Amino acid sequence: MNDFLNSTSVVPEFVGTRKIGDTIGMCIPSVDGMLLDKLHLTKRYSVLGVLSARSGAGPHIMAMDEAVKTTNTEVVDIELPRDTKGGAGHGSLIIIGGYDPSDVRQAIQVALDNLSRTFGDVYNTPAGHLELQFTARAAGACHLAFGAPVGKAYGLICGAPAGIGVVMADTAIKTAGVNVLSFASPGHGTSFSNEGMVHISGDSGAVRQAVMAGREVGLKLLSQLGGTPKNDFPSYIK
Amino acid sequence: MNDFLNSTSVVPEFVGTRKIGDTIGMCIPSVDGMLLDKLHLTKRYSVLGVLSARSGAGPHIMAMDEAVKTTNTEVVDIELPRDTKGGAGHGSLIIIGGYDPSDVRQAIQVALDNLSRTFGDVYNTPAGHLELQFTARAAGACHLAFGAPVGKAYGLICGAPAGIGVVMADTAIKTAGVNVLSFASPGHGTSFSNEGMVHISGDSGAVRQAVMAGREVGLKLLSQLGGTPKNDFPSYIK
Amino acid sequence: MNDFLNSTSVVPEFVGTRKIGDTIGMCIPSVDGMLLDKLHLTKRYSVLGVLSARSGAGPHIMAMDEAVKTTNTEVVDIELPRDTKGGAGHGSLIIIGGYDPSDVRQAIQVALDNLSRTFGDVYNTPAGHLELQFTARAAGACHLAFGAPVGKAYGLICGAPAGIGVVMADTAIKTAGVNVLSFASPGHGTSFSNEGMVHISGDSGAVRQAVMAGREVGLKLLSQLGGTPKNDFPSYIK
Repeated sequence: MNDFLNSTSVVPEFVGTRKIGDTIGMCIPSVDGMLLDKLHLTKRYSVLGVLSARSGAGPHIMAMDEAVKTTNTEVVDIELPRDTKGGAGHGSLIIIGGYDPSDVRQAIQVALDNLSRTFGDVYNTPAGHLELQFTARAAGACHLAFGAPVGKAYGLICGAPAGIGVVMADTAIKTAGVNVLSFASPGHGTSFSNEGMVHISGDSGAVRQAVMAGREVGLKLLSQLGGTPKNDFPSYIK
Repeated sequence: MNDFLNSTSVVPEFVGTRKIGDTIGMCIPSVDGMLLDKLHLTKRYSVLGVLSARSGAGPHIMAMDEAVKTTNTEVVDIELPRDTKGGAGHGSLIIIGGYDPSDVRQAIQVALDNLSRTFGDVYNTPAGHLELQFTARAAGACHLAFGAPVGKAYGLICGAPAGIGVVMADTAIKTAGVNVLSFASPGHGTSFSNEGMVHISGDSGAVRQAVMAGREVGLKLLSQLGGTPKNDFPSYIK
Repeated sequence: MNDFLNSTSVVPEFVGTRKIGDTIGMCIPSVDGMLLDKLHLTKRYSVLGVLSARSGAGPHIMAMDEAVKTTNTEVVDIELPRDTKGGAGHGSLIIIGGYDPSDVRQAIQVALDNLSRTFGDVYNTPAGHLELQFTARAAGACHLAFGAPVGKAYGLICGAPAGIGVVMADTAIKTAGVNVLSFASPGHGTSFSNEGMVHISGDSGAVRQAVMAGREVGLKLLSQLGGTPKNDFPSYIK
């Protein structure tokens, strides 16, 4: 056995993990200047928070959106690996910056805690998945990742395989008067994931209604490929 | 249980599914105008057909190539997610347009029915896969996806991991006088899939002969990685 | 059964396989000119060697780096599919050129033989992986793939999910005076893999020390996601 394999003490940067999505949260209290030069951040901060996961992009972005609202921190990088451990979607790498390590650690902790909510409307079958997200007031994470107007209601309606997301989007938009920010698909606005997803904003009630209509049609379509769509946490959009 | 999980009625957009590739076919009789603005289609149609799959790009493109030949529809988008549920290749999102919902539904149905033919020369092992395709007369799907000249014979010779496709391509091209349209590999012309594939066109007999020669060497090479290459449907290229 | 499925003779291009990474090595003694036009090589050679794998990019690049040092061959293409069979990283397609088939076959053989060394510091858990690489003298493969200065010590420090690689990089760089060549992450310098990796060069002792420090913190962080990181071959960096 090699020595470096035996130590069980955790490093100071560690904040916490969540089983869902193989998610890990960390904080670098004073990042190396040479590394900072090579990272691709929208703004330089010496205190960095890191949220990283194998499965889940929307849930982590929404969770971080809540976290930056309640702490003195800012989202400076969101990158979406083509992952989900063989599934159809993304993993995520989210970096936040701040001035005080305790702020940043708290933000990462808030994000980790929010995952059991933001995974509530992710439905899986062996054939694919659906993801629905809604916030009455978008903040920096939704803005950087999806172009959501800050302070306005924002909704995400996603289906995989991607074609299901096309029909979900059509149904959702027809249901209520919302603004269509963009439609992401395997070749546009994703990292070649097998997802079709529409990003919408507007009046809070309308956005919520559109998201729920998209969910309804998505569940019916995904079920046609076999299996019953199942969420790991209770649905939060109602 | 949430209400929206219990409904079993299928939505009007649903056309059909196939177990192979987790494939679903749908038709939107009158697509929302705002969504149409955000989709990335080569041409605007108000009736859209959607063929979407977790595994399989070539088979679905070839199946749709047959479908548009026999119906008054046109292929307006082909996108290739990096998928196959942990395998080395692509899934697919194909959108067609038409003027009449019954035409479009028929085209999607024809494509679904053709999959048991176009998957005939896809050979899998735990280590990788091979895919061979041939048509005596390429139409709009082969043209949009692979640059195949419309009306001419077209062939696809693909191996994964990618290096096997390099040797297959070399053997195929040396076998018969064909035009080499392009060679796609992880960094060029794929969505970072682990495939090497050559696209050829020309005289029907020569293209077929080249495809068969590529298949022979590919089967021998893939077998060296363990397992026996197996097709789920009978080979159609002979 | 189709005839072409029954033959067991291996084709002349075959050099060898390794179970690790589903790796296959091949050599084309005289590549077709039309294919050569369509491949994306940095330099034209008529004798090509091909190393191709489902899992592993760093290990194969480092193995090929040794191979080209000891043979009269040159690396002319390195492409990184998003693969690893559902894991977080890359597979690889590496093409070398030479003047003499026996040189090229030997280079491929040397690379295959080196894999049991270069996979020595790849550590896996169900949640992710770490990869560490070190050479006292980088050659053409490291240069083409990672921008490593030829003839200087080079090190790779990589963690997955990507956030672990950020913290590993920070620790590594702070440990010893090294040059930071670049930092690769899902959206920059990878094929959307879920990896964070720093490329460093400089004094041999410093690079080695930095790599070992990155490994130590990486093992602790990856362990927090459950499971014990395990390497398939003995560690070579000590």
